[in-house]
Amino acid sequence: MGTDMDKYLEKAEVLIEALPYIQRFNRRIIVVKYGGSAMVDETLKKRVIQDVTLLKLVGFKPIIVHGGGKEISRWVGKVGMEPHFINGLRVTDEDTMEIAEMVLNKVNKSLVQMVQELGVKAVGISGKDGGLLTVEKKYSDGQDIGFVGEITDVNPKVLYDLLEKDFLPIVCPIGLDKEFNTYNINADDAACAIAKAVNAEKLAFLTDIEGVYKDPEDKSTLISELTIDDAHALIDEGFIGGGMLPKLNNCIDAIDNGVSRVHIMDGRIPHCLLLEIFTNRGIGTAILSEGEGRYYDDNE
Amino acid sequence: MGTDMDKYLEKAEVLIEALPYIQRFNRRIIVVKYGGSAMVDETLKKRVIQDVTLLKLVGFKPIIVHGGGKEISRWVGKVGMEPHFINGLRVTDEDTMEIAEMVLNKVNKSLVQMVQELGVKAVGISGKDGGLLTVEKKYSDGQDIGFVGEITDVNPKVLYDLLEKDFLPIVCPIGLDKEFNTYNINADDAACAIAKAVNAEKLAFLTDIEGVYKDPEDKSTLISELTIDDAHALIDEGFIGGGMLPKLNNCIDAIDNGVSRVHIMDGRIPHCLLLEIFTNRGIGTAILSEGEGRYYDDNE
Amino acid sequence: MGTDMDKYLEKAEVLIEALPYIQRFNRRIIVVKYGGSAMVDETLKKRVIQDVTLLKLVGFKPIIVHGGGKEISRWVGKVGMEPHFINGLRVTDEDTMEIAEMVLNKVNKSLVQMVQELGVKAVGISGKDGGLLTVEKKYSDGQDIGFVGEITDVNPKVLYDLLEKDFLPIVCPIGLDKEFNTYNINADDAACAIAKAVNAEKLAFLTDIEGVYKDPEDKSTLISELTIDDAHALIDEGFIGGGMLPKLNNCIDAIDNGVSRVHIMDGRIPHCLLLEIFTNRGIGTAILSEGEGRYYDDNE
Amino acid sequence: MGTDMDKYLEKAEVLIEALPYIQRFNRRIIVVKYGGSAMVDETLKKRVIQDVTLLKLVGFKPIIVHGGGKEISRWVGKVGMEPHFINGLRVTDEDTMEIAEMVLNKVNKSLVQMVQELGVKAVGISGKDGGLLTVEKKYSDGQDIGFVGEITDVNPKVLYDLLEKDFLPIVCPIGLDKEFNTYNINADDAACAIAKAVNAEKLAFLTDIEGVYKDPEDKSTLISELTIDDAHALIDEGFIGGGMLPKLNNCIDAIDNGVSRVHIMDGRIPHCLLLEIFTNRGIGTAILSEGEGRYYDDNE
Amino acid sequence: MGTDMDKYLEKAEVLIEALPYIQRFNRRIIVVKYGGSAMVDETLKKRVIQDVTLLKLVGFKPIIVHGGGKEISRWVGKVGMEPHFINGLRVTDEDTMEIAEMVLNKVNKSLVQMVQELGVKAVGISGKDGGLLTVEKKYSDGQDIGFVGEITDVNPKVLYDLLEKDFLPIVCPIGLDKEFNTYNINADDAACAIAKAVNAEKLAFLTDIEGVYKDPEDKSTLISELTIDDAHALIDEGFIGGGMLPKLNNCIDAIDNGVSRVHIMDGRIPHCLLLEIFTNRGIGTAILSEGEGRYYDDNE
Amino acid sequence: MGTDMDKYLEKAEVLIEALPYIQRFNRRIIVVKYGGSAMVDETLKKRVIQDVTLLKLVGFKPIIVHGGGKEISRWVGKVGMEPHFINGLRVTDEDTMEIAEMVLNKVNKSLVQMVQELGVKAVGISGKDGGLLTVEKKYSDGQDIGFVGEITDVNPKVLYDLLEKDFLPIVCPIGLDKEFNTYNINADDAACAIAKAVNAEKLAFLTDIEGVYKDPEDKSTLISELTIDDAHALIDEGFIGGGMLPKLNNCIDAIDNGVSRVHIMDGRIPHCLLLEIFTNRGIGTAILSEGEGRYYDDNE
Repeated sequence: MGTDMDKYLEKAEVLIEALPYIQRFNRRIIVVKYGGSAMVDETLKKRVIQDVTLLKLVGFKPIIVHGGGKEISRWVGKVGMEPHFINGLRVTDEDTMEIAEMVLNKVNKSLVQMVQELGVKAVGISGKDGGLLTVEKKYSDGQDIGFVGEITDVNPKVLYDLLEKDFLPIVCPIGLDKEFNTYNINADDAACAIAKAVNAEKLAFLTDIEGVYKDPEDKSTLISELTIDDAHALIDEGFIGGGMLPKLNNCIDAIDNGVSRVHIMDGRIPHCLLLEIFTNRGIGTAILSEGEGRYYDDNE
Repeated sequence: MGTDMDKYLEKAEVLIEALPYIQRFNRRIIVVKYGGSAMVDETLKKRVIQDVTLLKLVGFKPIIVHGGGKEISRWVGKVGMEPHFINGLRVTDEDTMEIAEMVLNKVNKSLVQMVQELGVKAVGISGKDGGLLTVEKKYSDGQDIGFVGEITDVNPKVLYDLLEKDFLPIVCPIGLDKEFNTYNINADDAACAIAKAVNAEKLAFLTDIEGVYKDPEDKSTLISELTIDDAHALIDEGFIGGGMLPKLNNCIDAIDNGVSRVHIMDGRIPHCLLLEIFTNRGIGTAILSEGEGRYYDDNE
Repeated sequence: MGTDMDKYLEKAEVLIEALPYIQRFNRRIIVVKYGGSAMVDETLKKRVIQDVTLLKLVGFKPIIVHGGGKEISRWVGKVGMEPHFINGLRVTDEDTMEIAEMVLNKVNKSLVQMVQELGVKAVGISGKDGGLLTVEKKYSDGQDIGFVGEITDVNPKVLYDLLEKDFLPIVCPIGLDKEFNTYNINADDAACAIAKAVNAEKLAFLTDIEGVYKDPEDKSTLISELTIDDAHALIDEGFIGGGMLPKLNNCIDAIDNGVSRVHIMDGRIPHCLLLEIFTNRGIGTAILSEGEGRYYDDNE
Repeated sequence: MGTDMDKYLEKAEVLIEALPYIQRFNRRIIVVKYGGSAMVDETLKKRVIQDVTLLKLVGFKPIIVHGGGKEISRWVGKVGMEPHFINGLRVTDEDTMEIAEMVLNKVNKSLVQMVQELGVKAVGISGKDGGLLTVEKKYSDGQDIGFVGEITDVNPKVLYDLLEKDFLPIVCPIGLDKEFNTYNINADDAACAIAKAVNAEKLAFLTDIEGVYKDPEDKSTLISELTIDDAHALIDEGFIGGGMLPKLNNCIDAIDNGVSRVHIMDGRIPHCLLLEIFTNRGIGTAILSEGEGRYYDDNE
Repeated sequence: MGTDMDKYLEKAEVLIEALPYIQRFNRRIIVVKYGGSAMVDETLKKRVIQDVTLLKLVGFKPIIVHGGGKEISRWVGKVGMEPHFINGLRVTDEDTMEIAEMVLNKVNKSLVQMVQELGVKAVGISGKDGGLLTVEKKYSDGQDIGFVGEITDVNPKVLYDLLEKDFLPIVCPIGLDKEFNTYNINADDAACAIAKAVNAEKLAFLTDIEGVYKDPEDKSTLISELTIDDAHALIDEGFIGGGMLPKLNNCIDAIDNGVSRVHIMDGRIPHCLLLEIFTNRGIGTAILSEGEGRYYDDNE
Repeated sequence: MGTDMDKYLEKAEVLIEALPYIQRFNRRIIVVKYGGSAMVDETLKKRVIQDVTLLKLVGFKPIIVHGGGKEISRWVGKVGMEPHFINGLRVTDEDTMEIAEMVLNKVNKSLVQMVQELGVKAVGISGKDGGLLTVEKKYSDGQDIGFVGEITDVNPKVLYDLLEKDFLPIVCPIGLDKEFNTYNINADDAACAIAKAVNAEKLAFLTDIEGVYKDPEDKSTLISELTIDDAHALIDEGFIGGGMLPKLNNCIDAIDNGVSRVHIMDGRIPHCLLLEIFTNRGIGTAILSEGEGRYYDDNE
């Protein structure tokens, strides 16, 4: 039967190794914040979608929350719009909001399409559908930056209904305020708010960095595990800056509100989600509540 | 209590008059094809949404299928695209398709927003979600006109699930072919295919004409009721032309496939849907199967 | 399209106006105490039944509790019975109880009949069915006045079951004591006890007076809204007397036990129920818990 | 342990003997037509109710259909009404119908009361409730005999709903015609129509005779088992007359429409229902479809 | 109708007498510990199974927990195994455990067979199935006596599932420790732990003694009722010894953990279960929580 | 990230490869006949159980049917029983049957134990439980060979119930005849009968041979695919003999009765089940209905 058979047996062993992980998350909700380069590179995109689809098929309940990033900027340029700035910040005026919504919905449906192609039923919604995300206007240091919303309420009914009916929900971060105006929402914030509202077991951020560094200049200082207390300490001591600060605050917020594990991982690593979930190779940084280890112990 | 009270009593009487109609359609599915001027004029738009929302609230199960019409053309221009034509027909090339999908989804979510504002839960989907609409390429006299799809299969599961969970589904006419490419679909065709697939009790087309005329030049020849046989006769005798022909063929197809009543009505008449359904003032043209009258008799 | 169309549009507007009210009470229980002149006049009777039937059809869950009033006296006379009195109070002896039960059940089934005729499924029960109402003997100043019961327990299971199965329950106020003897119950008391037991959103008393007056002699002193505290004050100050006192005490009891709004209205006003619920014309007196207004505000 | 224990053991043996019969009818519907002397004698009445209640408790689904018989005549007299006759037949005019309905409902609720007293939940309804029985006017040899109805339609939904909710339904034989007028119905006819509509396993008539006799003058000719063919033969040969003829026709009708076994038994025999069902002592006459024996054989 | 009929009527009366008891326990769980002589004598065995089957059929939810007793010893001998003893206690070494499990499963399936023969669906399981019983090693005065387990956890899901699906569960007392080794469990302990876990209404021990005696030497000192306090007192005062002590401790434990009534009865009395439950002849000793009487009073 | 990461990525790819297979069988029933060497070798045993457990976890609904094989012979010897033979066939007399049942149940529970250890809930039953398997005595050329049963009826309710409640059912091949005597059943026959009764998607026989050979002497003649017609032809032409003949007849029987694919595979190949199901390496022989290929094509 030779080497050919050996290869097949190895494959079987990989599946068997996944067994305890599949068990662990059976019917648990995993919110995946999908963004960054992994949304641009077609090969990476396909792998992320494969990963999430596999999670669905083996019994998890994944929810994808995605951004639109560079695509929005591209379209804003395409229609020849003049960007507005206040205090150096881009303003989401009504026209920009219109473009942003169109682009986010386009991205949303393209993800639906990819999941459907893999044979899993998906429904793409925005925060408007079923009143999922309610926001209020967000100010930047007191300055009006337009239709940028801060989430004040999440009504997860539509997500629970879609999960119950066996759909994979794909959400784009747009919401309505109490007067039913449309607002853009930061996708990290949306993922975090949703993870909290549905009591997700896991929240995974696919980003363009490897994880949290003690010293961002020194790649060797990547932190594999971080308790809430560690995270607070790092922030207090000023180690965390730039785009990582709000992200880490989101992680802390999620853990404080019942999400068991939050992961910041590099979406550019092929199949990073599967690797994190189905193998004992830790990817990126795991933020945990006090007293928990990165890997589930036997009595959990 | 004078005249003020009289006014109130009159109101009460209107509600009471609606009673038998409410009963008749309790839990029945009504597919509303929403398009034309009623989508452009903001006042008309609000009224159509009020009507459909009321239908939902009093126990009907409406589904909205909408087009994007002039908005698509506006955006195609906005991004400075050159229209392509073959044999005088506009071709939906990849770029046009992209714009069309963006616009249709924008319109879709704006309808969701209006329904939500009236306090009813809505979910906006396209024919991609849950694999609702499967298409194949449509040719115009053998000519390739791009990503224009003909519906080959409807999987109504997502609609049934949303209705069961008490949502008002709003559908935009985009579908996937078997290779999972995106196609634009004629909204009338989509409404008709969906009405057939969900066994709708009623299918109502909101259009920009009053109904079917025997002589389109003579407004006094508006036909109030049309049996299937009448409709075939009119077509065979060449009375029907232009945009009405495919519409009427859709009506016939719907009736032949189990939809009980199809209405072609003028969406510019305020509250035309309510008038048709809750009063005995017939609006537009009703297409009926042989042996049925326009109004429900007592023993039905 | 002229005046005819105008009339129809006005009708449509009335329906649209009802929209927020329909929403507000969707699937909420409303207990209607039906009695007085509105039970004698055939035209009024028909209108009350139309109103309640409409409430059912648009998604409310009404329960009718009715009395038998003058009809009982008429039958007591018809069979030539001698009325018994103690301290000036009519005594419900065994024979009277038998007649009362027969008459109440007759009235009960005639209401069922009227509702069925309007196309809604109704089931008429008494407090005996499913053990709905348990009573103990009621004394009048220590005097035995026969089979007059005071409710000690309500088992609402049969009502919940009928509502779940989409029936409109119609209840006549007869109950059993622990030894399973039959007792007559004051219909106001029965309506109040049932409203409390099923956590009704509203309890409406259809009576023969316009509402609560500050000075019963002066019709201009009709009180439109009354908080619990106001009601207690009115009673303490001796403004309330006669048949209104127990009625108002019932109202207070209902509000104290979780019913949100209680209405005392004049059943002789045609469609008073619809007017109260679907328009902003307040009918009669509304008793509210502290801090609530008569009309629902937007954020409720 | 002596004789006392022996007595107890005997009791246990009786319960054990009932085991196969309990199994046989588990969750099967049994319609009991309750009438005649067993409704007049208080001791017999109590026993019948005990029997039916026991059937309910051990897992059967009994439905009681009852008449009012002599009680109606008593009340017609009590109010001093003049009986009308046409061709020697009593006419159910409007006044008589009113009395009849009152009496039947009184009897109905007294049965509810007795069942409730035994700890089983009962709901008493008439054929009006939930649209159970629809009738048309019945003529006697072309003569109008008033509000006597012939059943044209049974809508068993209310019975199925009550059974599902674990109630014992008790039905009095009153129905509505298509114009919603009230009609009296022969209780045997009602029981038979209901048994057919709910696909009863058994239909038992409690009567004042022992069963079907070959020669009514000779008690020794009591027939224990009768196939459909036998029954037809007996009728054709003129052996059956008087009140037995319509009863036997009802039996045949029931068997022809899916009821498995019909029993005519003497309601004056204490616990006749239990004896028939739980012991191998056949009571009265069993009417069976061709090829079945009176007792269930082992492989059924 | 003579004496034959009298006999039948007596039978009917027995059934009627059982009525209130059937009601009382409707859908309540009864755990029957089945062991001792009643498992050896074929006639007694059949009667116990008849009793439990009857309980099932009339609406109770019985669970049988059984031992294997003498049959295990017989088989240990049969295969020529040498018994091991430590401090005079038989040691359950691996070989003994293997035999014990085989015998217990054989007994288990023979009970399934008997219940099935009576027409009731049974499923036989051990504490391994569905993870029902988790144990840890039990030591006897610090001595290792082999695979004898003490229950540390009960997962009643499999029992609830089987009951919901209308099966009669039959359980043999074998469990797994956290390393998934097989252990033998005392059947009394298993019955008690299961009764607590499923919140049984009753726990009945079928034993080879009549009940609890004040003075085991004097049969006349049989105690009919025992409150928890009484039981503690008896133990403290040293009246209880031998095999009764752990049994009584189990009873106390069960009562303390929500089981309403525990019975110790003589399984050699034919139909002792039915006698205890369906008649007012108390069998053996009932252990009750403070303030309850042996027989249910009317208001319970 | 180097070679370590490469290894992990390879693992992820294996999981991704399994995706379409997981989809294909989602919620489908797979009956696995488990026997032969794979039941003796502890390593193989563990792998088979891992495989079936994985199938369960990723959404399949496996049912294990197992034999007891050599273990029964070992125990028959252990208790010193004399084997009986008729015409050279071993007779299953009462004592042998008793041993066989004990051994089969022991094996059954040891499989439950292994599955539970892997974190999946299992319930072990025999054909007695819930009346799963009914048999009649089987004769060998007219000779009575004792308690060897031929399946006459399968009542799959208990299997459906266990599957619905998310258990993995493990069945040992023992059944009852109509007189409720215990019979041993050939495990292949039991697996086949069960697969037919539950409409299994797949039936896989784990055996000690590689599959079906054209020439059993020549291993190179292993047949990979066999249609029903091919199978009949092979049998008719006399190529199939020995133990393979009844096995192949079982396969044909299963295919003829609605099972889609039957596999005969070598249980000694580690993870043969996973290899067959999750990779495109065909293991053993697949028996298919006419017109189907071994691998599922895209449009199926």
